Amino acid sequence: MAGLSPALLAGHIPALPPAAAGIVTIEPGRPCLLSRIDPDADGGLDKDEAKAALSVERARIQGLQERLYGEGKRSLLVVFQAIDTGGKDGTIRSVLEGVNPQGCRVWSFKVPSTEELDHDFLWRYHKRTPGRGMIGVFNRSHYEDVLVVRVKDLVPEEVWRARYGLINDFERLLTASGTTVLKFFLHISKDEQKERLESRIADPEKHWKFDPADLVERRSWDAYQAAFDDALTRCSTPYAPWHVVPANRKWFRNLIVARTIADTLEAMNPQFPAAAEGIAGLTVPD
Amino acid sequence: MAGLSPALLAGHIPALPPAAAGIVTIEPGRPCLLSRIDPDADGGLDKDEAKAALSVERARIQGLQERLYGEGKRSLLVVFQAIDTGGKDGTIRSVLEGVNPQGCRVWSFKVPSTEELDHDFLWRYHKRTPGRGMIGVFNRSHYEDVLVVRVKDLVPEEVWRARYGLINDFERLLTASGTTVLKFFLHISKDEQKERLESRIADPEKHWKFDPADLVERRSWDAYQAAFDDALTRCSTPYAPWHVVPANRKWFRNLIVARTIADTLEAMNPQFPAAAEGIAGLTVPD
Repeated sequence: MAGLSPALLAGHIPALPPAAAGIVTIEPGRPCLLSRIDPDADGGLDKDEAKAALSVERARIQGLQERLYGEGKRSLLVVFQAIDTGGKDGTIRSVLEGVNPQGCRVWSFKVPSTEELDHDFLWRYHKRTPGRGMIGVFNRSHYEDVLVVRVKDLVPEEVWRARYGLINDFERLLTASGTTVLKFFLHISKDEQKERLESRIADPEKHWKFDPADLVERRSWDAYQAAFDDALTRCSTPYAPWHVVPANRKWFRNLIVARTIADTLEAMNPQFPAAAEGIAGLTVPD
Repeated sequence: MAGLSPALLAGHIPALPPAAAGIVTIEPGRPCLLSRIDPDADGGLDKDEAKAALSVERARIQGLQERLYGEGKRSLLVVFQAIDTGGKDGTIRSVLEGVNPQGCRVWSFKVPSTEELDHDFLWRYHKRTPGRGMIGVFNRSHYEDVLVVRVKDLVPEEVWRARYGLINDFERLLTASGTTVLKFFLHISKDEQKERLESRIADPEKHWKFDPADLVERRSWDAYQAAFDDALTRCSTPYAPWHVVPANRKWFRNLIVARTIADTLEAMNPQFPAAAEGIAGLTVPD
């Protein structure tokens, strides 16, 4: 474990800054009720103000990422969950435009492979957690195993019920080992999903994004909301709380996600490593 | 192999566009002599012109990447090799700024792990080749196994000598399976390396990039140039030629690499998939 500070070696978990204004952070131990959170919230901003503010946040992320990468000791894992059309892909594209892809890896989790199913449910996610210096992004994540798996009855109830605690243990391991875990739930309304699906159907440019299976999934809207409420309630911990992002307005969503990522990196305060001893006197021969 | 066109299934290898003006492409079957290629070339451009042109190329790459990702059938592998301080990291950061990290993965290859050494030399690279729709970037690559491995005598000569042909076979497999392989050698002069090492020593902001081992490696400059000449000669094939990039001037290097990537993606001409049958009539229930 070369390069880790004594605090990290001792499993010390640093305090996280509060999420950007507009985001609802689920307080550990309190129930999450998505139906009480307004997906239309826009913080009183208009689109142009939000877009200008977003460029500032992107530049902050870019500079801080370079320091995180240079430091090479800790990492950031950003988790995105949402219902279909919730905006995971669009948020990732917008917020991370400008980061150096050498220091950032995005993983989209689809149906597990046979090999993945032959292991415990966390195995495939653990393999893809970010290494030191890296930002990792999960587009869908280990939470699928208490969401779609629960809604579609893919495993018995006692199996998925046990997973909340196992997920908390997994995230504690990551956090205690130098990985800050930031979890965003993109919260849209049922009407907004309807509009987004309709626009994918109406606009030939968006046809390729449309999957007729999304219409089938939409019938399970209420079951998904209940599964989200449970996951966000049971897995909002002091070391890795859930952040609910009002996401009907894409420009507001992008801004507050970007700001929370920038604030988190700033609080991590990564530092370029000191020079090796004796560099000052060196000369380079011809 | 769902989704592959008959031409790809038949192992058809599409023609590549020529590299951007200023790049020297090694003609298959002809010897590469780096000493005859001017690392100072700048195409008659000045820095400001090159920077303006670079933004245009970045925007082209961004748009084409989105189509490649949407199409989800083929991929692009970009390989960077250079001597220490040659500019691999800087080129990747500059050229790929703005790509959606969801569709681009950069891999830096360092000293192999024990598990990697327990396999054939191509195993760890093959694992990280880009999947359909993705741009993969290798910062160092399978060529290390005929470069540093040869210069430092890490395996017997008959072992590294056999690797040129094995590398060509590997790249033919990739190319015939829908992955376009673009290989860039960043070519700097020995004086330029001296300046770059000196600036890492002099500038405390760059200290962390300086590794005293680079001074030791510099003593093997000529052995490295000979190893590069051999690799570029033996592994420049019609399907995956080597491109030598004059790289003393960073702004010219970035421009011509970006333009070659954009031209290559344009020649691949990725297309968003057609809509599934019967989408037009669908309605979304409330």
